[in-house]
This record gives sequence, C-alpha cells and structure tokens, in this order.
Amino acid sequence: MSETLERPAAAPANTAREQAETWLSDFEAALAAGDADKAASMFAATSFWRDLVSFTWNIKTVENPDGVADMLNAVLGGVKPHNFQLSEEPSEDGGIVTAWFIFETEVARGEGLLRLKDGKAWTFLTAMTELKGFEEPMGERRPMGAEHGQDANRQSWLEKREVEAKSLGYETQPYVVIIGGGQGGIGLGARLRQLGIPTIIVEKNDRPGDSWRKRYKSLCLHDPVWYDHLPYIDFPKNWPVFSPKDKIGDWLEMYTRVMELNYWTRTTAKSARYDEAKGEWEVVVDRDGEEVTLRPKELVFATGMSGKPNIPNFPGMDRFKGEQHHSSQHPGPDAYKDKKVVVIGSNNSAHDISAALWEAGADVTMVQRSTTHIVRSDPLMEYGLGDLYSERALKNGITTHKADMIFASIPYRIMHEFQIPIYDKIKEVDKAFYEGLEKAGFQLDWGADNSGLFMKYLRRGSGYYIDVGASQLIIDGKIKLKAGQVSEITETGVKLEDGTELPADLIVYATGYGSMNGWVADLVGQEAADAVGKVWGLGSETTKDPGPWEGEQRNMWKPTQIEHLWFHGGNLHQSRHYSLYLALQLKARMEGIPTPVYGKQETHHLGR
Amino acid sequence: MSETLERPAAAPANTAREQAETWLSDFEAALAAGDADKAASMFAATSFWRDLVSFTWNIKTVENPDGVADMLNAVLGGVKPHNFQLSEEPSEDGGIVTAWFIFETEVARGEGLLRLKDGKAWTFLTAMTELKGFEEPMGERRPMGAEHGQDANRQSWLEKREVEAKSLGYETQPYVVIIGGGQGGIGLGARLRQLGIPTIIVEKNDRPGDSWRKRYKSLCLHDPVWYDHLPYIDFPKNWPVFSPKDKIGDWLEMYTRVMELNYWTRTTAKSARYDEAKGEWEVVVDRDGEEVTLRPKELVFATGMSGKPNIPNFPGMDRFKGEQHHSSQHPGPDAYKDKKVVVIGSNNSAHDISAALWEAGADVTMVQRSTTHIVRSDPLMEYGLGDLYSERALKNGITTHKADMIFASIPYRIMHEFQIPIYDKIKEVDKAFYEGLEKAGFQLDWGADNSGLFMKYLRRGSGYYIDVGASQLIIDGKIKLKAGQVSEITETGVKLEDGTELPADLIVYATGYGSMNGWVADLVGQEAADAVGKVWGLGSETTKDPGPWEGEQRNMWKPTQIEHLWFHGGNLHQSRHYSLYLALQLKARMEGIPTPVYGKQETHHLGR
Repeated sequence: MSETLERPAAAPANTAREQAETWLSDFEAALAAGDADKAASMFAATSFWRDLVSFTWNIKTVENPDGVADMLNAVLGGVKPHNFQLSEEPSEDGGIVTAWFIFETEVARGEGLLRLKDGKAWTFLTAMTELKGFEEPMGERRPMGAEHGQDANRQSWLEKREVEAKSLGYETQPYVVIIGGGQGGIGLGARLRQLGIPTIIVEKNDRPGDSWRKRYKSLCLHDPVWYDHLPYIDFPKNWPVFSPKDKIGDWLEMYTRVMELNYWTRTTAKSARYDEAKGEWEVVVDRDGEEVTLRPKELVFATGMSGKPNIPNFPGMDRFKGEQHHSSQHPGPDAYKDKKVVVIGSNNSAHDISAALWEAGADVTMVQRSTTHIVRSDPLMEYGLGDLYSERALKNGITTHKADMIFASIPYRIMHEFQIPIYDKIKEVDKAFYEGLEKAGFQLDWGADNSGLFMKYLRRGSGYYIDVGASQLIIDGKIKLKAGQVSEITETGVKLEDGTELPADLIVYATGYGSMNGWVADLVGQEAADAVGKVWGLGSETTKDPGPWEGEQRNMWKPTQIEHLWFHGGNLHQSRHYSLYLALQLKARMEGIPTPVYGKQETHHLGR
Repeated sequence: MSETLERPAAAPANTAREQAETWLSDFEAALAAGDADKAASMFAATSFWRDLVSFTWNIKTVENPDGVADMLNAVLGGVKPHNFQLSEEPSEDGGIVTAWFIFETEVARGEGLLRLKDGKAWTFLTAMTELKGFEEPMGERRPMGAEHGQDANRQSWLEKREVEAKSLGYETQPYVVIIGGGQGGIGLGARLRQLGIPTIIVEKNDRPGDSWRKRYKSLCLHDPVWYDHLPYIDFPKNWPVFSPKDKIGDWLEMYTRVMELNYWTRTTAKSARYDEAKGEWEVVVDRDGEEVTLRPKELVFATGMSGKPNIPNFPGMDRFKGEQHHSSQHPGPDAYKDKKVVVIGSNNSAHDISAALWEAGADVTMVQRSTTHIVRSDPLMEYGLGDLYSERALKNGITTHKADMIFASIPYRIMHEFQIPIYDKIKEVDKAFYEGLEKAGFQLDWGADNSGLFMKYLRRGSGYYIDVGASQLIIDGKIKLKAGQVSEITETGVKLEDGTELPADLIVYATGYGSMNGWVADLVGQEAADAVGKVWGLGSETTKDPGPWEGEQRNMWKPTQIEHLWFHGGNLHQSRHYSLYLALQLKARMEGIPTPVYGKQETHHLGR
C-alpha cells in the first residue's frame, strides 16, 4: 500500500497508474452518487465483474454494462462502497492495464484486481477480505497467550480447550456443523475457528487425514505443493512437490490439532432436518456409538466435491464370482499379485489403480468406454500452473494469495480462451507421447473446445488423467487396454459389446462420482436435494455440464436454494481460497449483519 | 543478490557501497594471496571476527588484527575462501557501514555481515549456510514425492518410512544419537533429517512435547512468538505471542511427525561409552522396557541447557513431614488450595510457581536468598527484542533469519554495551514498578554491569524473572516475601537464619540447575564430564560465570574436549539458529569432509 506513496517525484508519467487511478476514482464517485448507470458505463461492452461476497453476498459474475447496472441498482443502497486505493504499482501489457486495489464497504474491507482496456473495465474482481469489527486475530492482532497479571482461579489454555471440547455439542451448540472432515472441512473449520464461530466437524474415520490414508498406497497428489497450501500454515519448503497420501494425512491431522478444531472422529451423520420454528438444524449423528443431536444454525456439506460413488448397473454383476468394488473402495494392490484385474474406466482413478496393480504384479486390463483427456504432470505444471504456482512464481513475487486472486480474476466465461493455448503447447511438446498412446489404441480428447484439463475439472470434475506414469505402461502394453462398452458381467469376468470376454479375479469400477446433492438426499431428503439441484459445473453446455450458463460453479461456497445449507470443497486450491468467502458469509449471519443475496442461483438440474 | 546488479547508472555515488565493495574485494585478494597479515591489517585495532563453522570448523570469535592473523595463518591453506559478494545494498549510519554478503569456501557456501568503521572491519561475521554437494532438498530442490513413471514393486512413502523407523537402531545404526527430545533435540533432529543424517532422538516421556506439558499448568513461554520459531516451519500468524505450554507441546508433537523424525519415546539412556577401536559410541538405552544398544558415530546431549536440577542440601530436609520437591518436579497448583507453601528461590520458576499457587488459593511465601533481576515482559519485548523479533521488525524487512544473523553478529565481548541502554530505558519507564517491588522488600539487581537480562542468560542462565504478573502479587503482598538464608528445614516448615520460622505443607526448591556436563557424568562417567568441563557461560568473570574470557558460550554447538560428544540447546532462538551449524559440523564428518578445528576451547572449570 505504501508503494502508492513512494513514487519518486522525478519518475516519468506512468500512464498505467494514471489510467487506473482515474478509473477507480471516477468509479468510486459514481458509486457514491448512487449512479449505477454511470458506473456501468465505465465497463467495456464485453466485460465481467466477478464479486466474491463483497457487493452481492454471493459468488457472482455479472457481464457487460447491463449486468453491472442491474447488480448495482440492486445492491448499491446497502453496500456503500468507498475508499478505493491502489495497493501496488499498476502495470500495462499489450494494451491491458492491470491494477491491484483495496476498498471498503459499510461492513467490510476488500481487495480486487482491475483490468482496463481502452480506459474501460474489461475484468473487475472484488473480494471481501474481512468484516469490520470481526478482523481475525493474526499478526498484530494475534492473541497474547499468556494473560499477564494474575487472576485467582484462572483457567489455563489447556483447561479452557478441554472444557470447550467437552461441552460443545452437549451443553452448548455449534453455530455451524460441517459434514465431512477431509481437507475441505478442515480448512473451512480453521477459517471458522479464526472468526470465532463455534463449529463441529463430523468425520466418519478414526483420524483426520484418514480419507487420504485409506486410499490405494501409491496415491500422491496430482497437483503440486505450491497449489495445495491450507489456509494459515503453508507447507514447509522441504515438502515434496507431489505429496504422498499418507504424508498429506499426517499434515491434516497435525493441522486439525494445531488449529484447535472441534473435530469429531468416528462420527456419522444420520439425518438432518431444518426446524423452521426454532430456526436451527437438527442433525442426528452417531458419535462412536452414541447418538447425539446437534442444533446448528448453519449446515455445510464438505463431503467431497465428487459426491457419492457412481456404482454402475451392468447386467450380471450379481453373479460375478470374483471380487468387485468401486474405485473408492479399492484397498490397494497388495492382495492381487498374479491376479487378473479388469478396471472399468479410464480417468485418474482408473489409471492410478491400474498402475499400482501392475507394479504389484497383477495382470491388468483397462476398459476405456469414452475418450479421455491426458496431460503429463510435468508440462501441466510448467505450462498450466507454473506462472502462478511454482518456485518460479514465488521468485517473481507471486505469492499463493496473489496467485489465488489472479486465478479468481479470470472470468469463467472466457477462461477457456486462456486455457486453449496452454494445451496447444502441450500437444506440441508431447507429440511423441500422444502418438504412442493413440498407437496403443487409447482414445484421446482435449475437452469440448480443446481447452484441456482445468476446464474439464470446472465443468464436470472428470474426464481426464494427469499422467504420472501409467500412460507409459499403456503405451508399452504393460497395462492392457480395451476400448468398448460393457455388455454384461459374467460369472468369470467382463463381456464387452464387441463380444470380447475379459476374465477377471477382480473388477474395479472406476466409474466416477455423482453430484454432491446426493449426500443431501441421504441426509435431509430427496425433496431438499432436488430443490438444491446439481452441484458443480458452470452450465457450459459441454458433456456432463448442461446449460444454461451459470457464470459460477453451481452451489459451491455460496447460498443455495435451501437456506442455511451450504456446500464446500473442491481441490486444495479451491478449498483454501473459497473457504474464506464461505466463512465470511457464515460469520456475517452469526453476527446479524444483513446479507442480502444478489442473483441467487436457480436450480436447473436435479443432479440425480 | 540481484540487487548488486540493479543499481541505476544515474544514482549518486554510494559511499557505503563503495567502501563495502572495496573492503570485500581487497580482503578476498589478500586471502587468495594467502596473505594473512594483509587481511588482518584490514581489521580495526579493536575488532571482532566471529565465525560460525565456515573458516574454523568451530564457533569462534577472534579479536583484533593479531587474532585474525593467528586464525588465518592456521586455516587459510585449507579453507580457500572466495567469491565474496554483496547480497543487498549496504547502509551507513553514524559512521558505521553495514554490509550483508555471501561467499564461498572450498567446501561450502556462506553468508555474513560486515561493519566497517573508517574503512576497517569493526565486526565481521562469517557463517556457513550449506556444504557444496550436500544442499538441503528444499525450494527448487525439494523432493518430487511421487516418482513419476512406474516401477514394479516400488515402495510407497509410508512403506519406506515404516521400514526405516523399524530398522534404524536395530539392523542399521544411526550416525547421530541425540539424548533429549525437547525443542532442542527436535529442532536439531529436523536439521539432521534434512541433511540426510540417520538420527535417533531418545526421549524419556510418552510423547513429543511432554517436557512442556508436564510442567505447571499456567506456564507460558516468556519469549514472544517471533523469537521462538523452529527451523523450517514458522508458527502461523494466529499463534499467541506467549505460547501456553500445552500448545507448544502440541506443536512439537506435530513437528516431530511432519518432519519425519526417528523419535524414540519412553526411552532412557542408561550408559554411553566411546569405543576407540571401532570409532563409535555404544549407547545403551531402555526403550519402553527393552534394552537396546545404539552405535552412533556422534553423540549429542540436548538435555536442556539448564542441566540437572540443583537439589539443595539443607539440614533437616529428611525430617520434614510435608511434601517437598524441586521446581522441575512441581506438579502444578491444583492440590494445594488453602495449603501453606514456601517457595525457596526467586528466579523465573519461583515466580511462576508462586503465582500459580496463589491463583489456586494457596498461602504462598517466597524466600529470596539473593538479589534478582526483574523485567516486565512488555518493555522487554518492546525495547529488548522489538527491533529484531516483532511484527514491527517483520514490517521493516527483518525476517527471523536476518534477525538471527544480526544477533549473531554482535560480539559477546561488547554485547553488554548494547544491552545497558536498553535496561536504563526500562528502569526509567518502569520506575513505579521497581519502587513498588523494593517497597515490598524485594532485592533487585540489574546484572553485574547493569547489562540486564540477556547477558545474565548468556553468562549464567539464571538470576532473573521475566515478569508476567507475579511481581504485582509480591507488590500487593498476595505472594508473601521473605529475604534471607535458609538455616534448616524443620518437621513443619522452613527456618531462616534470622530465626523466622515459615510453616509449610509444601516446600518447593526453586533452586536452579547445574551444568549440562552433569548429564555426561551420569551417562559416560565423571572423567569425561570433567574433561568437557562446565557448559554454558562466557567467562565474563561475573557471578556464576568465572573467567578466563572464552569469547563464545562454553561447549555449546561446537567441538568439545571429548571428540564426538556435543551439546545442543538453549532457548528456542538459539536452538533454531545454532542447530544449523551443529548439523553442518556433523554432516561434514559423516561425509568425510576434513574439519580441522581452529581454537578448540580448553577446559577451565569442572562444572560440578
């Protein structure tokens, strides 16, 4: 911030700075005057304003001057935005002026990123950072720990912590219950703790991190470490690029402890019902054999963005004499040496499981039922993430927070345009690799519009494999490959539509996951699940992501059609970044700060 | 580093830079020419060169041109120093030019801090940062985690870790055994792990962190968080300023896990003997009831810089009918409500324990046997540490590493001169507080030369209380105070030389600790303990720190008179910083890099 004051008087006129300062001050003036049309006119004909909770109490992108005007007309009376200031020196590149700024509203402080084209806003990101009067106790505001001076009968930190852990959920009620204690629930739990929101995280496993530990033994994160930090505590500098699953498990366990989360292990949610009269949820859980009823005001599903396993329904599954299970239930390869295994599916899990089985000496055949997008991990890191999340990015001053904000500033509507060249490049540098795969009979795709992996992830959360070695096994024929559709399961194996019979001791159904609202159906009821509708996806009208265009990911981290019911999750990057905005929404509700939601998403798909 | 290239051509001549560059290049030339006298002549008549392992394979300060010449004549042939470069823009203040630099030797890279006065070196710090070819796997060198590509029968991270944990100490032997798994042993263990040195840490308690957890319940760190980071993982921004003991315990436990240390809990070292013929130690430990013999090449005592408890030998202790224990054994106040307690001693532990007992409703009398130095925590942080370790320091660009280096660059010989003004200031701002204490009969001192707390810590490790509230209880008479010497313990209490009888249900002997070589006596034998001599202190010829002047802390983090036997510890700051230099010394020995020690400390005091 001080950079704005330190420009030497003798420096040449900085047109980037002048353009950004002029735009921000004119914009602030228009907002102060309540002139939504004037403010909207400062946006380019094609333009995007993405707001994270600060103007809309929603995660919302509005488009073009019309969209801006509609939003501002709805919210301007309450928001009272002011005090826009550059937070570092703006830059110009290829006619685009890029400017980081901070601002305030009536109730909050925010930060943002503006891109100007010909003096008008092309992209505009506004994001709440903290609620006034409810700033997090960090840095200069950190707690003292020791309370200097002495009070008779004072409790120690440990005593207070033990009393809290013992009484919460029994004598006192949490404000929030989070269902699911994976990285999503844990990261959000840490944010809520920091904001002083009494929270219980409900987790079925024995220990934090078990959701990783219990997966197949060779599993490592497919995203690199710089992308994966949790809030508040970065992975140390010696942390592996691709973290092994048990190591991530240990980290989550220590994080849960150190962040002092109220984390109920061996606990399963049985049912949840919103009591309109009392204005609270009634969540019945089984805590290690004891039935406990929790009464939170807000309920968050953090059960994994992939939702419930899709168990296929092939004819004959019931007569199969070998072992069969969904990939989420796969115990790892150790028991399958010299066994014949058929893996149905060709996405991440199918590849990882096939490779681990091959390593352990199994005879593995992968059944590819539809085209799959493959990217090797190295070029994906280099071209896909390297500018934002890498040692190189850090050296260029791109901290994790800054990278998150840059990422958030690219509107979903045009994000594929930024992605296509990355995959064109990868296609080129890995030409031989892709030819090898095709020669082996693997059916490749590059996403609906050749926009590659990240768009597939955002649109459907499936349809790809980040290659960490399995593809070479397919190229080499070590993992056998068969393309086609399953016609039936026989007593002894898998039969395909072309008549091929694949004998199997084990069949792994790597057939993916459903929508997260499936968990709502189980816990709250089908009616609520249908009201909420499909979770995830953008409405891109590509495979598994039907329209209409939503502008944001469906139902994630923002108000849903069922009040007081929220979804949290995604990859580690998303969990880290969006947990802040979900936490601020919950905190505002707890403190009685008005949170009028602009443009709440409607439900277009049941997501069954 | 790049700053050295980026100076704009048009900038005015920077004399600080010119002086520093000239000095460093002339110095490098003299060293390259093997001209020790020329190099020594570049030091001021009164000057100090402190070397941390890079020139001397020792922690060593030499003084004045004579001392520099002597050292260089001894080491120059082997060290081959070169490539001195400024690492940031030098500054000038009050005629002193301060310059940060980096350099290389034949086997290592180093960093340093130079202060020039009239063109000659006044203080010069050289510190090894890494051994060439054995750089730590961090940042750009971090491990990949996932090994891309597939190998049949590959072990997962967890499997490798489990095999290592199981075999080390049985089928394979550690290179280093660390006795004591408090913060010192843990931090050093992390450094050794990073350097690939097989290490076992031996700890008697059940869990990492128990050495904190088991202390009295109101204990919090007396040093602020910015001063207390462990290597590699900083405390997060929400960590309390003064960490409660159980919270530090949890942090140490998670740290031990996350850094993958081989940490043997419930393990006690029974004996240690160096086998000259085999060139290894034979360390017999009791591991949870099983006797195991470890055969490391190097043995580190990290048993707490305070050494073994000093149990006093007052007449009549055997006939006392109440409860009596050393402060290190004190269980906390809970059992002593409405009991009469006499606390003998007036340093940190005595105050903390007295305050906690008063809070819990005990009737407490403190017996002050000698003058004590008291500083309130707040001004100590503000004036004593604030420039280096605080949010303010961080805002000024003083990272923890930089602060550690600045601290290390102040020669012990003159450090008191920097300390005296701090305590003059504190005396002034807290005038009323000190008057109150004196009025209550408390006998104050400010250290031998009014240099205050930190010098007392370095010289004797005792004689003070960092006030976090107990002093006000003394001022208010809530903790009763009695000055005098104990003449005997009676059946019912404590009798002082002036005839006063203090009835007691509990007597706490807050009588301090001995020298760390007491642990060597127990484990290796008295002969070895005597050969090593007193541990800690500078030879300042002040109370409890007899001369001659040593220049560095006795026996800490550097070669001792018993080869392959080392001491590690100190406060969290020292453990963090000096663990690097001890780790590098051990790594060099493991890799067979020659480590000729210049100026090994002689033993002047038995330390019994």
